[in-house]
Amino acid sequence: MTKRTEISTLGEFGLIRHLTENIVLKNKSSLKGVGDDAAVLDYADRLTLVTTDLLLEGIHFDLTYVPLKHLGYKSAVVNFSDIYAMNGQPKQITVSIGVSRRFSVEDLETLYEGIRLACDVYGVDLVGGDTSASLTGLTISITCLGEGERGKVVGRDGARETDLICVSGDLGAAYMGLQLLEREKSVFRGEKDFQPDFSGKEYLLERQLKPEARKDVVAALARAGIVPTAMMDISDGLSSELLHISKASHVGCRVYEDRVPIDYQTAVMAEQFNMNLVTAALNGGEDYELLFTVPLADHDKVEALEGVKIIGHVTREELGNYLVGRDGGEVELRAQGWNSLS
Amino acid sequence: MTKRTEISTLGEFGLIRHLTENIVLKNKSSLKGVGDDAAVLDYADRLTLVTTDLLLEGIHFDLTYVPLKHLGYKSAVVNFSDIYAMNGQPKQITVSIGVSRRFSVEDLETLYEGIRLACDVYGVDLVGGDTSASLTGLTISITCLGEGERGKVVGRDGARETDLICVSGDLGAAYMGLQLLEREKSVFRGEKDFQPDFSGKEYLLERQLKPEARKDVVAALARAGIVPTAMMDISDGLSSELLHISKASHVGCRVYEDRVPIDYQTAVMAEQFNMNLVTAALNGGEDYELLFTVPLADHDKVEALEGVKIIGHVTREELGNYLVGRDGGEVELRAQGWNSLS
Repeated sequence: MTKRTEISTLGEFGLIRHLTENIVLKNKSSLKGVGDDAAVLDYADRLTLVTTDLLLEGIHFDLTYVPLKHLGYKSAVVNFSDIYAMNGQPKQITVSIGVSRRFSVEDLETLYEGIRLACDVYGVDLVGGDTSASLTGLTISITCLGEGERGKVVGRDGARETDLICVSGDLGAAYMGLQLLEREKSVFRGEKDFQPDFSGKEYLLERQLKPEARKDVVAALARAGIVPTAMMDISDGLSSELLHISKASHVGCRVYEDRVPIDYQTAVMAEQFNMNLVTAALNGGEDYELLFTVPLADHDKVEALEGVKIIGHVTREELGNYLVGRDGGEVELRAQGWNSLS
Repeated sequence: MTKRTEISTLGEFGLIRHLTENIVLKNKSSLKGVGDDAAVLDYADRLTLVTTDLLLEGIHFDLTYVPLKHLGYKSAVVNFSDIYAMNGQPKQITVSIGVSRRFSVEDLETLYEGIRLACDVYGVDLVGGDTSASLTGLTISITCLGEGERGKVVGRDGARETDLICVSGDLGAAYMGLQLLEREKSVFRGEKDFQPDFSGKEYLLERQLKPEARKDVVAALARAGIVPTAMMDISDGLSSELLHISKASHVGCRVYEDRVPIDYQTAVMAEQFNMNLVTAALNGGEDYELLFTVPLADHDKVEALEGVKIIGHVTREELGNYLVGRDGGEVELRAQGWNSLS
C-alpha cells in the first residue's frame, strides 16, 4: 500500500524543507539556494537568461495518464529547453507549487523526484520556490535562470535572407503520443477491462511524457563553431515557431515538405488515426526540438551535424512563409499551434 | 458600461503582446525583455538575487473585495519586498498568469496596470512571462530578480548574540484591514443595501490592499552605513519571522511587548473586534515591513533612523525565543503565522 501523509501535517515551511532537503548546489554561480527570501546567484561576466512557465492541471497536463514523476521531469525540462533555445546553459530553477487536498506529501515527493532528476541530468540547481494550498488541482510554476556568452546569445530576430533553416531531431511524435494517450484514457480511468497495447509506440509515449531538451545540439553547434542567427525551441509546432522567427526577423521563409524530419512511428500512427502526417509534424507541438537559422556559408558545417536537418531557407519578408510540397505546390504556413489542436 | 473583450479573441500570443506592449526597459541590466524564449540580463560584477511567489484566487486573495489593479500592484510589491529583505534592489520581474473564462481582456489589463504601476514606482522592468487558460479562477506567479553588492547581501543566518533586533514601520495593520474587509464582505456581495463605513480606517485598508515594500529603509540603512547582520521581510507575522532568523542563525531572542510598533487605528480596530492587540501585531502577517538585526555598536546609528524601532536583542540559542510583557513576564514565541490565522 502506498503511504499517504496529509500535507497539513507538515505545514508550509515543513513542506518546503522536506521537499528541498539534501539539495547540493552544483553550479559555481549558485551562491545560496532555498531557505531565504531570495536565492543568491553570481554571474561574473556572462549574461543571465531567465524564462518561466506556468503549468495548470486540466490545461497542460492530465494526471489520468501522466505519472507525477514524469510531470516533474517534463516541467523542468521545458524550461531548460527555453534557455538552450537562446544558445545558453540553464543553471538554476525556482519551483512554485499550488496543491489541493487531493494530493499527499508522497505525491509531491514523486513530483519533486522528477524535477530533481531533471536537474541532475542537466546540471541545474533548484534554488528556491514557494508552496501553497490551492482550491482545485495542481499548479506548477517554474522559472529558470541560465547563462549565455556575451555575443553568442541567440534570439528570434537575427534571421537574414538566404540563411538556412534547420531543425534537430524529428517532429510530430509528442503530438501523436498525446493522441494515443487520449484514445486510451478510458483504460486509465478503469472504464475498460483490457490493458492498452503500447508496443511499437514507446517512442511516441516517451516523446510526450518524458521529453528531453537539446543540450547536445547546443553543444554540437558550439563545437562546430556555429552561432545560429536565430533560434527557438519547438513547443507550439514548427509552423507557429517559423512565423515567430519570420515576424521578429522581418523575413519570410520556404520550408520543404520532404525535408521535414518525421519518425516512422509517427507516420504509422498518423496512418492509423487517419490524420495528415505533415499537419501533425508542422502543428503538433511539444517537440522541444531546436529550430534555428544559420548563414549559408555554414552549409557544410551544419550538414555534418548529426541529428540536424536543413529544411528550407530564409527569404525576403514580402515573399511570405510557405511550405513547398512534394509536387512543388506552395501552401501558406499558419500558426495553428498546439493550443488550438488540443 | 464596461467593455468586455473575450480573451479568446486575442489568442495566447496576442494576449501577451497586448498586455506587454509599450514596456520601456528602465535598467541597464535589462538587455532584452518580453518576446523571446528568455529575457537577457546583464549583471556585471554584482550578485543576482531571485525570488518567486505564487498567488491563487481563494487562497491568497478574494476578488470580492480586492480590486484587480490593487491585486496586480500588491503581487509585484511582495516580490520586491523579498529582494529588499536581502539588502538588494529589485530589477526585473517575470509574470505568469492563469485565467478562467470568467475574466476578460479588460480584467487582465487592469491587473497589469497595477503590476506596471508597481514596476514604475520601484524602477523594475517587466521582462517576461507566460499566460494560460485555467479551469477555475486566477493564478498569478511572479519571479523577481534583483542585484546586491558583493559582501552586503543579507540573509537570515547572520544574527549574533547581543545584536539589536529592529523593525520598520508598524505591525498588525494589514491583518486588521483584512478582518475589516472580511466583516464587510456581505456588503461587497450586494447582500446588504448599505455601504460600509471605512472612514477612520483608511490606513488599515491601504496596508491590506496596497502595501509598499521598504525601499526607503534599505536606502536609509545604506546612507547610515549600516549592514544588518540578518534581515527578512515580515510577511507571515513577526513571531514567525523571528523564529526563522533564530533558527537560521542558531540564536535566541528577547523582544519587548512595549517596543512593538502599532498604529493607533490598529489598536482601535483590535478593541472593536475584541482581539488581543499584541497577538495581531505578532502574528497578523502581510505587513511587508523589514525585520533586521544590527551589531550593538550600531545602536546610535539605528536609533537615529526615522521609522525604525529597536524591539529587542539577540541571545544565545539555549535561551529560546520570548516576548517580554509589560509586567516583565515572558511568553514563548510561536509561529502561528498568517496561514493558520486566516
